[in-house]
Amino acid sequence: MHDPAAPNGAVPKLLFDAVSPVPRCLRMFLLEKGLRVPCVHVDVFRGENRETAFLALNPAGQTPVLELADGTVLAEAVAIAEYLEELHPVPALIGSTPLQRAQTRMWWRRVELNITEFIHNAYHYAEGLQRFQGRIPVAPEAADGLKRIAQDRIAWLDAMMGDGPFLLGNRFTTADIWLYVWLDFGNDVGQPFDPRLPRLGPWFERVQARPSAGQSRELCAPLGCSSGPA
Amino acid sequence: MHDPAAPNGAVPKLLFDAVSPVPRCLRMFLLEKGLRVPCVHVDVFRGENRETAFLALNPAGQTPVLELADGTVLAEAVAIAEYLEELHPVPALIGSTPLQRAQTRMWWRRVELNITEFIHNAYHYAEGLQRFQGRIPVAPEAADGLKRIAQDRIAWLDAMMGDGPFLLGNRFTTADIWLYVWLDFGNDVGQPFDPRLPRLGPWFERVQARPSAGQSRELCAPLGCSSGPA
Repeated sequence: MHDPAAPNGAVPKLLFDAVSPVPRCLRMFLLEKGLRVPCVHVDVFRGENRETAFLALNPAGQTPVLELADGTVLAEAVAIAEYLEELHPVPALIGSTPLQRAQTRMWWRRVELNITEFIHNAYHYAEGLQRFQGRIPVAPEAADGLKRIAQDRIAWLDAMMGDGPFLLGNRFTTADIWLYVWLDFGNDVGQPFDPRLPRLGPWFERVQARPSAGQSRELCAPLGCSSGPA
Repeated sequence: MHDPAAPNGAVPKLLFDAVSPVPRCLRMFLLEKGLRVPCVHVDVFRGENRETAFLALNPAGQTPVLELADGTVLAEAVAIAEYLEELHPVPALIGSTPLQRAQTRMWWRRVELNITEFIHNAYHYAEGLQRFQGRIPVAPEAADGLKRIAQDRIAWLDAMMGDGPFLLGNRFTTADIWLYVWLDFGNDVGQPFDPRLPRLGPWFERVQARPSAGQSRELCAPLGCSSGPA
């Protein structure tokens, strides 16, 4: 996985972090990897991510963003996680073989496309409406339906997962990180999942007990860097 | 990218294909790669993908599915495409370096999370409602809002993309394939995009002109295999 064609300069230089579930997924990933990346705090509550300086980094206006030593900027937490796993394959949180990676990506996408993006969008259109209207297009009338679908699909995933401790059996992966962070967020914003679900209930407790779960709630600091304005 | 740890048996054996945009994305990917995989047709219109035989392959009930020679089954078109690119790196449709792959994945996700999944879900809740209700949870009241958001984000992507011929500049990638297939689908199901968009209008014509665009409309046959019941 150490691709000799990778430009030497393309090492992580600065992480633009924020108080939001997507950056938290990446923080938990970094903590599990044992990677430390200098980071700064983008104040998404006051809309710093929609201002000119940040939009010059990521015109999509979303956090997190990873700036590399050669000035290249990467956005989208999943793309950043994949990149960092290629540079730092151990411990493998996506996988050590093409097949392991494919299986992780399969479950990761089941989690995202059926559950976490529904929680995310429903939040934008309901509890987060006041903050997000004017920043992104919103559909308040869709919120209740999307919330209901997220909960339906959480039960669907519960029925589909095996008896292993994690979504990928014995392997703890990015699929677990993403699902955990979003279920934890849902618990905080009026979209609690049913902890009596036979597999996901104990699974949630299991992931919650990992040091990275609590540490990733904090911004920047656990990654070994001082937070401050960009 | 040829991982020596990959089990030798894990070569593609049989593709379960269907008349649907997600499998079409994978067909177009296979055609662009020049890969031929034996395939069978799953009749999603009569719900074959929700019957016991198919659910034994993929409990999520979704197409496409790739069965490997060792019996392993992969689902989720993106995960399958990533797997096939690892086994067959040339021509690169995701990327030849970690950075290229990261940049493709970044645009691929912008496309999916902001546009194609909105088109997809809105279709499930409106034009596709009769077929999908009873199979998956639906929210008909959300359809119009999701359609509106998809169109808004198509214009947003248009404003964000550069002047190159493709989303990744001179590189034709999976991000182009996914966006093209879904915009083409939207055109067919009452979610047409505005062809006057300055960048995406010409881009659509450009991608449409590739042989893989037309060939991927057909099931199985262009991949060099006879279609038939699984």
